[in-house]
Amino acid sequence: MRASQFFISTLKEAPADADIISQKLMLRAGFIRKVAAGVYTWMPMGLKSLRKVENIVREEMNRAGAIELTMPVVQPAGLWQETGRWDKMGDELLRFKDRHERDFVIQPTSEEVVTDIARSELKSYRALPKNFYQIQTKFRDERRPRFGVMRGREFTMKDAYSFDRDAEAAGKSYDNMYAAYCKIFDRLGLTYRAVAADTGAIGGDRSHEFQVIADTGEDAIVYCPASDYAANIELAEAVAPAEARPAAVAQLAKVHTPNVKTIAELVDFLKVDIKQTVKAIVVEGEEGDAVLMLVRGDHELNEVKAEKLAGIKKPLTFASPTLIRAAFGAQPGSLGPVGFKGRMIADRTVAAMADFVIGANEDDQHYTGANFGRDCAEPEVVDIRNVVVGDASPDGKGVLAIQRGIEVGHVFYLGTKYSEAMDATFLDEDGKPRFFEMGCYGIGVTRILGAAIEQNNDERGIIWPDSIAPFAVVLCPVGYDRNEGVKAAADQLYGELAAAGVDVILDDRGERPGAMFADWELIGVPHRVTIGDRGLKDGKVEYQHRRDSAATAIAVDAIAAELLQRLAK
Amino acid sequence: MRASQFFISTLKEAPADADIISQKLMLRAGFIRKVAAGVYTWMPMGLKSLRKVENIVREEMNRAGAIELTMPVVQPAGLWQETGRWDKMGDELLRFKDRHERDFVIQPTSEEVVTDIARSELKSYRALPKNFYQIQTKFRDERRPRFGVMRGREFTMKDAYSFDRDAEAAGKSYDNMYAAYCKIFDRLGLTYRAVAADTGAIGGDRSHEFQVIADTGEDAIVYCPASDYAANIELAEAVAPAEARPAAVAQLAKVHTPNVKTIAELVDFLKVDIKQTVKAIVVEGEEGDAVLMLVRGDHELNEVKAEKLAGIKKPLTFASPTLIRAAFGAQPGSLGPVGFKGRMIADRTVAAMADFVIGANEDDQHYTGANFGRDCAEPEVVDIRNVVVGDASPDGKGVLAIQRGIEVGHVFYLGTKYSEAMDATFLDEDGKPRFFEMGCYGIGVTRILGAAIEQNNDERGIIWPDSIAPFAVVLCPVGYDRNEGVKAAADQLYGELAAAGVDVILDDRGERPGAMFADWELIGVPHRVTIGDRGLKDGKVEYQHRRDSAATAIAVDAIAAELLQRLAK
Repeated sequence: MRASQFFISTLKEAPADADIISQKLMLRAGFIRKVAAGVYTWMPMGLKSLRKVENIVREEMNRAGAIELTMPVVQPAGLWQETGRWDKMGDELLRFKDRHERDFVIQPTSEEVVTDIARSELKSYRALPKNFYQIQTKFRDERRPRFGVMRGREFTMKDAYSFDRDAEAAGKSYDNMYAAYCKIFDRLGLTYRAVAADTGAIGGDRSHEFQVIADTGEDAIVYCPASDYAANIELAEAVAPAEARPAAVAQLAKVHTPNVKTIAELVDFLKVDIKQTVKAIVVEGEEGDAVLMLVRGDHELNEVKAEKLAGIKKPLTFASPTLIRAAFGAQPGSLGPVGFKGRMIADRTVAAMADFVIGANEDDQHYTGANFGRDCAEPEVVDIRNVVVGDASPDGKGVLAIQRGIEVGHVFYLGTKYSEAMDATFLDEDGKPRFFEMGCYGIGVTRILGAAIEQNNDERGIIWPDSIAPFAVVLCPVGYDRNEGVKAAADQLYGELAAAGVDVILDDRGERPGAMFADWELIGVPHRVTIGDRGLKDGKVEYQHRRDSAATAIAVDAIAAELLQRLAK
Repeated sequence: MRASQFFISTLKEAPADADIISQKLMLRAGFIRKVAAGVYTWMPMGLKSLRKVENIVREEMNRAGAIELTMPVVQPAGLWQETGRWDKMGDELLRFKDRHERDFVIQPTSEEVVTDIARSELKSYRALPKNFYQIQTKFRDERRPRFGVMRGREFTMKDAYSFDRDAEAAGKSYDNMYAAYCKIFDRLGLTYRAVAADTGAIGGDRSHEFQVIADTGEDAIVYCPASDYAANIELAEAVAPAEARPAAVAQLAKVHTPNVKTIAELVDFLKVDIKQTVKAIVVEGEEGDAVLMLVRGDHELNEVKAEKLAGIKKPLTFASPTLIRAAFGAQPGSLGPVGFKGRMIADRTVAAMADFVIGANEDDQHYTGANFGRDCAEPEVVDIRNVVVGDASPDGKGVLAIQRGIEVGHVFYLGTKYSEAMDATFLDEDGKPRFFEMGCYGIGVTRILGAAIEQNNDERGIIWPDSIAPFAVVLCPVGYDRNEGVKAAADQLYGELAAAGVDVILDDRGERPGAMFADWELIGVPHRVTIGDRGLKDGKVEYQHRRDSAATAIAVDAIAAELLQRLAK
């Protein structure tokens, strides 16, 4: 491609409403332009990268035996009513009426349509397994679209759906997709981690998120550097401390703690170690009762874990001030287990504490030297907290670390959730109808580009991995429009590389070197060759990788081979 | 591709609501499945063909210098209000409100978004010409979706938009697209015709439809077999007769014509030549007045031509019985120019008639021997009728023929219609802002598949052109699952063809030959090789083109070369 035949549109400044680096850089580099909140045009430069992501995803999905089809963007409400998602999904589901007042949605995913296809097309066990996928426009009416293509409303997703005759076969389909996803993210050239994720109501352990590692990521990823353990923070297990609870030593003593409402204030006021304090959180039980949850002062309640407990109201609901006052006789800030008659659940770490500091169920009063069994009942002991750095790994192989990630893929075992809801069956060998065992597998195609930039950028702009750069190589002739020798050398190298199948762009715009280099560093093309009059006199051109701080002189007749070798890596 | 790895789903019967042959065959051959009225899933087999069409369109658009981008499916109402299309487009424009009650549309085309891009991105004449295109999902809320993918609601369109500095440059962009479209439809392997079309309010002669020729087509295409003249029926000019009007011979005579309301009844009753009769049609003028239009008895009023005339109410409105009674004193069926005081417009053919038969403006009365100038005023003479077979070609090179066509592409010079409405300007060489001269260029990507089938089918199914068949070649081994020799020969040929880049499918399902052949004839793969035990004993396989009535024995070691030669054509 010649730059004069393409469309390059860079901006000095990002629009004021851009809120993260990838969004700013995609706007500045001319990859996207905003049309409405969370809705973008993919400009020619951005579309080049987007198509490369799509192609890698498509190739690996095909290689894994999945079969591509395209389900409609606009889908009739009827199918969504069969699964109940019409009612269950909130305002994120874009609904509208057509001219005949019939209800439709714009697909956020396609479980309903694909299950409808399966129930009419996959009649026999002989048709199984099958894995259908599409790479298609989705819409999710986010309340607050932000982060550019990372949390847009209109986006491209690859969604795949597997159909199997039993759970074992579904497990194989799941493993197959997991392996395909690893190949995809390897080929995309991204640093990522597959982490175990919560399966919600489905149960089982078959849900993994693929997270691109980036300091700016929204998600906390827990992993063990000494093993292959990795889970998202929602799921990662906080194991019980190795040491058993020490014997009680201190006496229970009530202390006046005026205006102390938070753990930080308590630690400051009493001059105690935060690890000796216990935080009380009150949630509603299924009967509308107050349930007391206890985590150590420096720990956080894990709401996903808490919500999953039997007897707890779903979704997790924090108790109102009225309920708290009725159950404890005190305001939040001074709550605790002593004298409380209701259900009490302590995190495993809290359960191993003695002589701790806790609210006294009297406003502005706390206890020091509190002990389970002696001063109050023994609690139920459950893992209800987020892990923290340094916690023991659940696999017993070291301690946990935490890093930030951006979720770009998710593989999920669905079981018969959708097939039962839609009465989607096949005839098994014995002639009996059985529900399909399903899995679903998503990749946020447009989101990947944002994640790749969050992971790979510097003060000059984007740094693309070779595989998804809009162009792998840029040729920057200095004075293309006025120097015959430079033009001839640039044209020849361009022809040579293009003929070798390299995705190369020749900047024939005649821009000054400074502006030209700034453009390509912002756009993030990984390999740059500068062709200048001075170098050519010595038979040299200059090569610079986007991550290099300086250029290297390379013989004109060696540069093509050098580039081919670098790109083959 | 091996059939066992793909998804083949043929039906013996098409669903009862399928109304044309292409729709029936696409459903039976498993190309599409209906999700809602006018909304389809593209099944794996259909998607294969669809992608081939997309790729040919994309390659030729790129070759023509157009630059691909992707505008959003969901677009904010604000842009549509700028051009007035928000108000002007009726129920076909799908509108909805997002969760914040803001108005949006689902794009039927993207003039607004692309013009918005141009006004912010193309600041200078130096950035011109530019031609942006996308291949993208569109939605048009048809009142009565039908004909499968030919008049669906959700469909894929390639829409391109050119931006030029003046009308002359815009003309070059137009010619460039016209040439690209010819290449595209040539490569698609379709018999088509580019026909001049009406430009509506834009004016000028720069609008062409690309019509795939098919007896079942909705459109009438007028062409001259002796020249390159071609136009759609709306535009095709009906020239004045070569002979001048003969002198009046007959006397004006009133005849009682009881219950004669139509030309057919009049001809039957009076035993006159239909070419001696004149049909009177009354429409409303801009002032609400009655305007009399006259065409020969065997001709039809062309409503597009009639509506374009100055002083005629737009859209064209036929006069009410009340208005007719007031203006003529008679009911339709007996109307005519004699005694009528209002505006009168005669078609050119009528203007050259003498001694004609016409309504007498008295119920159940007609005149014979009527003549302009003598019995009534001379009319305005304008071309207001549809041409008919045998009319002289407007280019003077022969007579016109008519065939049926399916519109699959349209190139259109827009002028400054959108750029003025959206105040989209660039700075010209003299530093002054000027409106972009625009063109738009559409191809109905999904529709092409329906049109290709309407043009190419027989009682056994579809007959695809090589370039857009889901597979170019199918290998049909007889007894693949039980005959080692057949399996080995089939596998070897498959490997050979696949290595040579042929898009081949090996039917390894082990179906009986009858069912297997029926499937592939329905699906319409153009080249079939049957590999059977008997033939192999003589070192032969059987080749049959989808249009052949019988197979030809070809040596096993010659078949690959034979196929490559046929596909290279």
